[in-house]
Amino acid sequence: MSAYRSHTCGQLTAAAAGSEIRLSGWVHRVRDHGGVLFIDLRDHYGITQVIADSDSPAFSALEKLRAETVIRIDGRVKLRDASLVNPKLPTGEIEVYATDVEVLGASDDLPLPVFGDQDYPEETRLTYRFLDLRRETLHNNIMLRSQVVRSIRNRMWDQGFTEFQTPIITASSPEGARDFLVPSRLHPGKFYALPQAPQQFKQLIMVAGFDKYFQIAPCFRDEDPRADRSPTDFYQLDLEMSFVEQEDIFATIQPVIQGLFEEFGKGRPVDTNWPRIAYAESMLKYGSDKPDLRNPIEMQIVSDHFRGSGFAIFAKLLEQDGTEVRAIPAPKGGSRKFADRMNAFAQQQGLPGMGYIFWRKAEDGSTEAAGPIAKALGAEPTEALRLQLGLGEGDAAFFLGGKPEQFEAVAGRARNVIGQELGLTDENQFKFAWIVDFPMYEKTDDGKIDFSHNPFSMPQGGLEALSGDPLAVKGYQYDLACNGYELISGAIRNHKPEIMFKAFELAGYGADEVEKRFGGMVKAFRYGAPPHGGCAAGIDRIVMLLADEQNIREVIMFPMNQRAEDLMMGAPSEPTNEQMRELRLRALPKE
Amino acid sequence: MSAYRSHTCGQLTAAAAGSEIRLSGWVHRVRDHGGVLFIDLRDHYGITQVIADSDSPAFSALEKLRAETVIRIDGRVKLRDASLVNPKLPTGEIEVYATDVEVLGASDDLPLPVFGDQDYPEETRLTYRFLDLRRETLHNNIMLRSQVVRSIRNRMWDQGFTEFQTPIITASSPEGARDFLVPSRLHPGKFYALPQAPQQFKQLIMVAGFDKYFQIAPCFRDEDPRADRSPTDFYQLDLEMSFVEQEDIFATIQPVIQGLFEEFGKGRPVDTNWPRIAYAESMLKYGSDKPDLRNPIEMQIVSDHFRGSGFAIFAKLLEQDGTEVRAIPAPKGGSRKFADRMNAFAQQQGLPGMGYIFWRKAEDGSTEAAGPIAKALGAEPTEALRLQLGLGEGDAAFFLGGKPEQFEAVAGRARNVIGQELGLTDENQFKFAWIVDFPMYEKTDDGKIDFSHNPFSMPQGGLEALSGDPLAVKGYQYDLACNGYELISGAIRNHKPEIMFKAFELAGYGADEVEKRFGGMVKAFRYGAPPHGGCAAGIDRIVMLLADEQNIREVIMFPMNQRAEDLMMGAPSEPTNEQMRELRLRALPKE
Repeated sequence: MSAYRSHTCGQLTAAAAGSEIRLSGWVHRVRDHGGVLFIDLRDHYGITQVIADSDSPAFSALEKLRAETVIRIDGRVKLRDASLVNPKLPTGEIEVYATDVEVLGASDDLPLPVFGDQDYPEETRLTYRFLDLRRETLHNNIMLRSQVVRSIRNRMWDQGFTEFQTPIITASSPEGARDFLVPSRLHPGKFYALPQAPQQFKQLIMVAGFDKYFQIAPCFRDEDPRADRSPTDFYQLDLEMSFVEQEDIFATIQPVIQGLFEEFGKGRPVDTNWPRIAYAESMLKYGSDKPDLRNPIEMQIVSDHFRGSGFAIFAKLLEQDGTEVRAIPAPKGGSRKFADRMNAFAQQQGLPGMGYIFWRKAEDGSTEAAGPIAKALGAEPTEALRLQLGLGEGDAAFFLGGKPEQFEAVAGRARNVIGQELGLTDENQFKFAWIVDFPMYEKTDDGKIDFSHNPFSMPQGGLEALSGDPLAVKGYQYDLACNGYELISGAIRNHKPEIMFKAFELAGYGADEVEKRFGGMVKAFRYGAPPHGGCAAGIDRIVMLLADEQNIREVIMFPMNQRAEDLMMGAPSEPTNEQMRELRLRALPKE
Repeated sequence: MSAYRSHTCGQLTAAAAGSEIRLSGWVHRVRDHGGVLFIDLRDHYGITQVIADSDSPAFSALEKLRAETVIRIDGRVKLRDASLVNPKLPTGEIEVYATDVEVLGASDDLPLPVFGDQDYPEETRLTYRFLDLRRETLHNNIMLRSQVVRSIRNRMWDQGFTEFQTPIITASSPEGARDFLVPSRLHPGKFYALPQAPQQFKQLIMVAGFDKYFQIAPCFRDEDPRADRSPTDFYQLDLEMSFVEQEDIFATIQPVIQGLFEEFGKGRPVDTNWPRIAYAESMLKYGSDKPDLRNPIEMQIVSDHFRGSGFAIFAKLLEQDGTEVRAIPAPKGGSRKFADRMNAFAQQQGLPGMGYIFWRKAEDGSTEAAGPIAKALGAEPTEALRLQLGLGEGDAAFFLGGKPEQFEAVAGRARNVIGQELGLTDENQFKFAWIVDFPMYEKTDDGKIDFSHNPFSMPQGGLEALSGDPLAVKGYQYDLACNGYELISGAIRNHKPEIMFKAFELAGYGADEVEKRFGGMVKAFRYGAPPHGGCAAGIDRIVMLLADEQNIREVIMFPMNQRAEDLMMGAPSEPTNEQMRELRLRALPKE
């Protein structure tokens, strides 16, 4: 017999009754019922109830055990009395009468109990992560993550992709974030960078003639702390294909993601119809480029009703160039109380407020519009508004005016809150949409033209389109939105050096700088580059959605805290003098 | 129809004759046979022959194509004449008559041709890796590597393991090599380290109650250049199990490795009987702890025959403590010419030489021993020697004397050369052995006691064994040798803090230092650690064996050169002033 176990703690059923067995695991809980000990013995696979009475030679040893001690027990499997069967446990039909016990790993008093659901400060949980990971929810989340990654891999292979590992100690590959640098000992004064994403490498893989690449790829970005992202590294499903157009990518990735959510979504419905929504339309209707389509509310432009109207604020606003008034319909939101709460929400979000109309039953039984805007606007325009929005008694509409870029984001958040508060959003499902036709360029705060997303995307219309207004150029660039999150981002790449140089020129980068920053890739494009494109999907985000967790640290085995510290391992730490000497580096005093 | 292809270049067979198709790929080769162009069009999947005569509207465009241009062609599939069928190509029954062509990606003149087998300097190959990777052998090696990794993953899941990713930006985890450091921007003056291996994390995963972990894990060691290893990062199959003894690990891993070699070994026989050989026995018999068992030669101790004998050199040597004489039998090596060549080999390797005896037919038809040692030793001892070694006419034996640690390594290499030169080693197979019972400690050059391998291993005999002679302590530590390489290294871990502190104390590390260097893990062991063990297998080495390659860069997609530079991407490189300012670092001038 094995020195440690004949069975796992999740394995014994009534069929084993009478047999002599050996188990090892953690002491999950000990109860003393009048001279009979009940020990829940736990391992990765389950929990088995072990009992010992004072006749058992193991009794005195078992009596002294602290929670979380690791023990090996020998014993005999007994059927439980029918009244004591626990149908929730796979091992609930039996218990094991212990005849021998050995302590394999002692335990001090616990800073964090494993048994029970009590919440503990994150600092404690991260310092004693090895204990936290024994707790049921986190343990299950980590197992889920692993199974999700496995399923992604299998689905990608089934689609004809091959996984390749790209370098981790490499050159800077600017993706808009800060690089982590690694000083070179052999080349003092020079540094490697950890890849922000394998962007250039995957494009080089296409140029190298491999047709369909994927990787569960570690990515490294030295970002300032934020609750929903890891401050150091994260994983993405990274993929790239040659000889494809945008729709080929969609057709390839949808079955992977849809299948994944069907497999691990715990029965929540998974939408199979994934609409394509242009970026501009998405911003208009949903106030976001990652709309939550579980929420049926669609915003509309209602400027015409306000132009030159009696509602002076909007009428005046609309005299300026580039302004609009948009409405957020709020079916069933027709009460002053709700309308006032939403107005306050907009103010919290930094807007002057959010005007509203709500429709109620008048004393004569007809439908009447209420609220200051309705009064100022007058009956006829208000009715026209109501008809455009398709609203009626008991409903409301909220209005935002000005330059869309100044209120769009708040409008989007208001839409979310309205959908949730009014119960319009059926949260128990997964809804997807491809957001397409992103603009290639945007105007920065200081009035310059810069890339709005990935500079490696192919502009729609190719070289020709780049000779017109840069702000009108759209890219073959796309995101997959799911339940209000960006799950995937990708593009058809710009594989032609002449178009690439022109695209960078528009954003103010000379040929020299392009050669310097992306030299490896640009050079490769001169020796037969295939048309190609791809995307990347965030693994953490996918697992968070599937596990229904809000904090990224609930789906990562050993996460950093928000100050980018590993409290368990003590990282980062002071280097030794010898290390600094070998690297030819000196640390400067704090500023 | 897709904009780029209806079929891949490896897909069309006689069944497609007559159909209109579209292909995209690289111009592999163009031949002009008297006004008819033959173009080998290549993609990841294969090669298709495209033809065009002067009647084709595509003729003039095709005529001008440079090699490695990426094109799209439309055309009609035609059966080849029976005499022109190429049975070596899956598409060899057909050709495609081109009616339209489009250049998708132009190519400059090539610094490195893709067509043909000509060797190019490694510098060129690495600078233009994207071209080198299009070449058949390297392309196939990289595909093989990916398939091997996939197969390993599937086999591990089938064995009940779960894959977890461990942190890459983390704390130093000393494994005997130098760490790569990553300066922290948020904590100026502090550094993260890239893991030399996930050793501590995988042990923490066991303490966290996950039972069977594996990972295709990136490992980072800042090592000085060597031909057969990557100077920066490499991948290993890393695994760990709880509640196991050494033989449980062997029983788990053998089916994985054996199955892998059977799957990808191209029919070469894979040994299924994996002997356990104690370290001391392996050093004696094979002069190595990673013996090549394809070679049947086993060395033997023959000191007794020389003690006080007429062969003064050895007789005198044996008077010193700790000395031995060992013989390398060389069946069929019985000629003076061969014996002299091996003697010269030993001299090249830094020994004074290697004495020998060889047995030949004497003039009277009997077997006689020849060579200076036989003469000095005398007939009777020489005959006893021959009998011990089981040799006869036509055979030879080589002798090395002194302290074994001074000649063992050369003896091992001599054994290899003898096996190869005499054709005793059947190279066309894979032979494995577990090397066990490694000593825990060794004496360093300055006479101190230090760990000889992994300090985290459980000493055989536990705490008790550590109170005797450290050099006599063996560890539950093991390697898997295959064809003369170390494929796997592993151990049953020391999971008991008191034994761990004692083990480190013997090697001169105080409790403070252990807490400082391995604090996270030591702390974890105090809260219920299960007995556990595991191992790690080098992915690069496995693929090199399977692909029959000698250079690690032939099995890595984007390798560094031996000076740890990426010539294609230009890494490492000078950081910007802003980066250095943000990291609060200053580079010192070169020494």
